Amino acid sequence: MRRCDELGAISDERGRLTRTFASPAMRRANQLVGAWMREAGLQVHEDAAFNLIGRLPGTNRGAKTFLLGSHLDTVRDAGKYDGPLGVLTAIATVQLLRERDVTLPLHLEVAGFSDEEGVRYQTTYLGSRALAGTLTAADLARIQEKQIVEARRKKNEFLGYAEVHIEQGPVLEKNNLPVGVVTAIAGQSRLRVEFHGVAGHAGTVPMNLRHDALAGAAELVLAAEDCGALATVGKLEVANGASNVIPGNVSLTLDVRDQQDARRIAAVKALQTKAKTIARQRGLKLIWQPVHQTGAVQCDKKLTQIFSNGVAQSGLKVLTLPSGAGHDAAALSTICPVAMLFVRCKGGVSHNPAESIKTADVAIAIGVLADFIQTLVKRYA
Amino acid sequence: MRRCDELGAISDERGRLTRTFASPAMRRANQLVGAWMREAGLQVHEDAAFNLIGRLPGTNRGAKTFLLGSHLDTVRDAGKYDGPLGVLTAIATVQLLRERDVTLPLHLEVAGFSDEEGVRYQTTYLGSRALAGTLTAADLARIQEKQIVEARRKKNEFLGYAEVHIEQGPVLEKNNLPVGVVTAIAGQSRLRVEFHGVAGHAGTVPMNLRHDALAGAAELVLAAEDCGALATVGKLEVANGASNVIPGNVSLTLDVRDQQDARRIAAVKALQTKAKTIARQRGLKLIWQPVHQTGAVQCDKKLTQIFSNGVAQSGLKVLTLPSGAGHDAAALSTICPVAMLFVRCKGGVSHNPAESIKTADVAIAIGVLADFIQTLVKRYA
Repeated sequence: MRRCDELGAISDERGRLTRTFASPAMRRANQLVGAWMREAGLQVHEDAAFNLIGRLPGTNRGAKTFLLGSHLDTVRDAGKYDGPLGVLTAIATVQLLRERDVTLPLHLEVAGFSDEEGVRYQTTYLGSRALAGTLTAADLARIQEKQIVEARRKKNEFLGYAEVHIEQGPVLEKNNLPVGVVTAIAGQSRLRVEFHGVAGHAGTVPMNLRHDALAGAAELVLAAEDCGALATVGKLEVANGASNVIPGNVSLTLDVRDQQDARRIAAVKALQTKAKTIARQRGLKLIWQPVHQTGAVQCDKKLTQIFSNGVAQSGLKVLTLPSGAGHDAAALSTICPVAMLFVRCKGGVSHNPAESIKTADVAIAIGVLADFIQTLVKRYA
Repeated sequence: MRRCDELGAISDERGRLTRTFASPAMRRANQLVGAWMREAGLQVHEDAAFNLIGRLPGTNRGAKTFLLGSHLDTVRDAGKYDGPLGVLTAIATVQLLRERDVTLPLHLEVAGFSDEEGVRYQTTYLGSRALAGTLTAADLARIQEKQIVEARRKKNEFLGYAEVHIEQGPVLEKNNLPVGVVTAIAGQSRLRVEFHGVAGHAGTVPMNLRHDALAGAAELVLAAEDCGALATVGKLEVANGASNVIPGNVSLTLDVRDQQDARRIAAVKALQTKAKTIARQRGLKLIWQPVHQTGAVQCDKKLTQIFSNGVAQSGLKVLTLPSGAGHDAAALSTICPVAMLFVRCKGGVSHNPAESIKTADVAIAIGVLADFIQTLVKRYA
């Protein structure tokens, strides 16, 4: 927790926490965290994508590597825990394993990824995707630091990846639980929807002659609540809105997420059908524009089970839940099995200086992660 | 129609029509319209409130005055007919009566009011209320031209007021009728409503743990459609809206109008009850803030009947309808009986350069207004 505070003071902006890809603050953060890694006995280097890597070689040279970690970059005006918690708990876990004199036949690495939030280039997972070798030509076209492709690691090098992260949601808090085991990272559909009707004078157009774009949009907002997936209309804009004008043009965003791609796709389809019905019944023009789509990433069942067993052995109820937010684990899932452990955060708040977690919860997470590695060691020894 | 075009070219702004209270363009407009009034035989002066007044004295000196008119100011980027049509048809009616050699025992006046739209000071009916003597201290506090109170006319001076105006709605067009007789000017309630919930991550807060301010607002938007009065949510704003954030704060405007005050008040009450229910069920905070309220103004039954008879005698179906928009007639109703005649406008469009009316419809309106005055003359001679 002290390290989270210290790291949280390293920022590119005065008075608030912002660390973006390859920025001066990120270099200072890597230096500080690198020092902590060395203290824990790790061999430290920064890869070509500015990822900070700490390595604890195993006793069996030909063994695969198990990767722990999360990201060290932040959003603008961030909290202290989203990202750093996963890196610092990994370092603490290595320390704990050494204190316990655990012999590691497999290699262990801790990664502090350089770009998960994508603030600098409006990308996703630049650091972890560079390591996984899944950067695209389109990614490289928009960034200056072309050399990051060289951070690519060998296929089959990794046995798996495990990440601790704050939940960024209220489920653990509501259930009075310090940690939860992640089943999957939800897939996401992002859409832009427009309804175009006829603007008119609020006092002179009878209700039955109106083509009110906002009323149509309101129907869709309510339909989204019942679409069977996690659905959000986060932005809604009435063009030239005025109190005495019937809205002629409304645009809105639709965000649909689910850990099951089929369920998400069915929900989007059902909402599109509903939007068409609304438009037809109200005499509106509908524009339905998919913006972005990512498939769900399933966490590895075996690794996840080890987490669950560890939680149960700590005497805690095992709560499994999907992650609605994306994580570096999604990038790593393309090259190895992944698992994630969520830590309760106050009010479910993240991406905000008000991010808050409990010391006792973090201690539990470190214990569960250390047990996780010890179980792996027994199994793969 | 030619005069409407000519007057429509007089503007305070280049390239679009805007004439506001006491502006240079309004002075030029009064000069031009004043010249047309003189041409029609009227004695012209501008009163202390910048209202242009043309007077045709009656043969009976002690008689009351019947007032015709509308306003010469406009909204920003206005059409050519909202306001001016009522002044110019009144002048044309005077001309027609003189051509018909009608003897007028009563005095006839035509008013071109200086401020109906209220653009300059965000007021309503500055010109006609100055004449009616109903300006308040609050009105005077916000305007520079304090002398406008001196435009006040004597009580009991007016026999009545009649105004021709474009409908600003689609009802006449839908019914294929050139003119319609106004029954009342609707009363209006304007409210500002806020829902405050809890902002959250669109991917991490389960649907059942949300307090989505936009979903609450959407319910109210749909309830407004069924409240029994003419109700419009014209503005709706999601504070800090982002596609991946559950809306925490939404504000909206509510505009409720009806020609029956009791029905309007009941509708507002029902919507408030609904909003409270929404807030309670969704765990939102509700702010319900009445902004402005005006009572309905009933048109005089006798004067309105004269209009209806005139329309029927032209061989046209008599369609009676309320006015959802406010008019100078509302201001005049405090000192004399009022009546209004609506003229069909294309698509119901007003407050827009696209305002469009038909020459034949205007001719019918002038004929009906001339017959109206002749009937009055017979009745009050």
